[in-house]
Amino acid sequence: MTVYEQALEMHEKWNGKLETTSKTPVKSREDLSIAYTPGVAEPCRVIAEDKEAAYKYTMKANTIAVVSDGSAVLGLGNIGPHAAMPVMEGKAVLFKEFGDVNAVPICLDTQDTEEIIKAVTYLAPTFGGINLEDISAPRCFEIEERLKATLDIPVFHDDQHGTAIVVLAAALNALKIVKKEKADCKIVINGAGSAGIAIAKLLLNDGFKHIILCNSKGIVSKDSARLNWMQEKMLEVTNLENLSGSLADAMKGSDIFIGVSAPNTVTKEMVASMNKDAIIFAMANPVPEIMPDEAKAAGARIVGTGRSDFPNQINNVVAFPGIFRGALEGRAKQITEDMKLAAAYAIANLVKDEDLNEDNIMPEAFNPEVAQKVAEAVKAHIH
Amino acid sequence: MTVYEQALEMHEKWNGKLETTSKTPVKSREDLSIAYTPGVAEPCRVIAEDKEAAYKYTMKANTIAVVSDGSAVLGLGNIGPHAAMPVMEGKAVLFKEFGDVNAVPICLDTQDTEEIIKAVTYLAPTFGGINLEDISAPRCFEIEERLKATLDIPVFHDDQHGTAIVVLAAALNALKIVKKEKADCKIVINGAGSAGIAIAKLLLNDGFKHIILCNSKGIVSKDSARLNWMQEKMLEVTNLENLSGSLADAMKGSDIFIGVSAPNTVTKEMVASMNKDAIIFAMANPVPEIMPDEAKAAGARIVGTGRSDFPNQINNVVAFPGIFRGALEGRAKQITEDMKLAAAYAIANLVKDEDLNEDNIMPEAFNPEVAQKVAEAVKAHIH
Repeated sequence: MTVYEQALEMHEKWNGKLETTSKTPVKSREDLSIAYTPGVAEPCRVIAEDKEAAYKYTMKANTIAVVSDGSAVLGLGNIGPHAAMPVMEGKAVLFKEFGDVNAVPICLDTQDTEEIIKAVTYLAPTFGGINLEDISAPRCFEIEERLKATLDIPVFHDDQHGTAIVVLAAALNALKIVKKEKADCKIVINGAGSAGIAIAKLLLNDGFKHIILCNSKGIVSKDSARLNWMQEKMLEVTNLENLSGSLADAMKGSDIFIGVSAPNTVTKEMVASMNKDAIIFAMANPVPEIMPDEAKAAGARIVGTGRSDFPNQINNVVAFPGIFRGALEGRAKQITEDMKLAAAYAIANLVKDEDLNEDNIMPEAFNPEVAQKVAEAVKAHIH
Repeated sequence: MTVYEQALEMHEKWNGKLETTSKTPVKSREDLSIAYTPGVAEPCRVIAEDKEAAYKYTMKANTIAVVSDGSAVLGLGNIGPHAAMPVMEGKAVLFKEFGDVNAVPICLDTQDTEEIIKAVTYLAPTFGGINLEDISAPRCFEIEERLKATLDIPVFHDDQHGTAIVVLAAALNALKIVKKEKADCKIVINGAGSAGIAIAKLLLNDGFKHIILCNSKGIVSKDSARLNWMQEKMLEVTNLENLSGSLADAMKGSDIFIGVSAPNTVTKEMVASMNKDAIIFAMANPVPEIMPDEAKAAGARIVGTGRSDFPNQINNVVAFPGIFRGALEGRAKQITEDMKLAAAYAIANLVKDEDLNEDNIMPEAFNPEVAQKVAEAVKAHIH
């Protein structure tokens, strides 16, 4: 049985991967009078006086919404809100299992930017945070920015920032091995959607200097046709020499390749054209831009993918549970750049120096220390 | 310690009464590959082909949203969405504990009818049903009607229909004791908001004929000032003689008084002016329209309240968990009048003839058979 057949069978058996559970059994009239009427009126009255008390008396304290419109789901594309449910439910499961964060999947029946912003704004009183998920670019940028500007709870688009954080963590550890300086590295990011752009931004914020974004047409430059507003904006900080050409052109003489694009888009020749001690993060899912053995054969020193069956899995699951755990515990109003950088360093530092090697640059996802350390790092950077 | 102090202390200890729980532990890479990527893509693909498959593979099958705007919470009034959370969370707890229905509280940060309709419409793909709660009249009528007309999942405003169902059940059993015919009974309903109007409608649908609605100004008649559109509409089927006057005037010569109004609004004299074998359902919470001992002293034969510390508690909790349990199991697209009537009869019939007496007209809320019988009755009436 393939993993797909197994998954279908198990999803039918589970009939929903997530359930709601009462923390308080209601077995007697007395229980009922405390958890519900008339006693419940008292926490209501207190919160009516001071909204912040909701964090003391309600699930807002430790519950987030995982919100999607189903427009850009995994490798599946725009499959709509109903079909996106298994992914959002799965994400909610991971939030709970890895970060002890309650999470409710919310798949919205609209793909209109303004309507999504409204819907999330209306939902906000219930939740302590909003994890946006699988919303297509460039709408995802505006939706997140506008919600961050108006809501008093953290809003975090994981496809952007979760990915950027784990890629930065992987890059930091890889550079320790190859002993190159961030500021000297030439980086090519293939994929100029939400993940690629967020990776570029976070690397720049951490001190990387030379980044070129590519899309399916090649290098993103001032001469590229049909760029969206965010891609245009990224040209102010990437590809400063305004190079143009193919992905192969971009990769010549580069130090790090980061793929958040499509299967088999990188050839051995492209890898061979990179600088010595080349680093390849080929994260297209489930089939990477180039298979690790091929990349190694072509001269790459360190290869990471999104997959669990190869070394160096670069997977958001080491980031998002701890990030929201920390943000909720610290009652953060936003997840800031500082918090993201701190999370990336915490993830990188979970691999001890003595364990660090070409095939071990990322911490093990199932290590319970991961979410805890990430949460601590995030909390320490709440102002 | 009062029940209010206890409730405050416990709500702080619980820090949220509800949590999300994974049905499937994620302890290994294999678990992850089935519950999340890459395996999860398969149920997504199947649902993308056929939306109905969401009921097979996702929590939509057994999960509802408890939606409020916090505009008419219990006896607290318009306290807004944050302060309404303890009630909605409590309601979600009751859905789970009494009906094994997963329920997510959603408190909306808008009190605009159109925006609430939009928000619920956008949320709908996630859920198998919508329980509207504590939304003020007359907005609640339009919101429910419009959502019922457009959504393909059941929408149920519990303040209206849950209350109406339990009142009808109580009335059916009370009439068995006093041996009066529905069609002959004169009924006064004090409270012309969502509950009072829904009670009137359901009683009429079940064959009661003579109903007068009162509000704080007295009898609702064609001469009443400032009626809302729903109250106007109710005049087509209630108070057909167009009586006017006070609540006391209405109660003279009546057989059943149903109070969904305010504490201490009914006097002994009013009860004494009713017909022989008077039935009083004084459901104002926590202090009823008249205390049971006073009503009895004034000649009432059967008295019910909303409280658990008196006989004959008339409480929605015997209705809503089973109603949604049945609707979800039967994949109902709506909760129809037939289903509501069936639920009321199922509740009434849970009190066996040999147990039925003046102080025992309603089933025990904690009897697990209640939700099961109600669910069966509802399922049997899905077309």
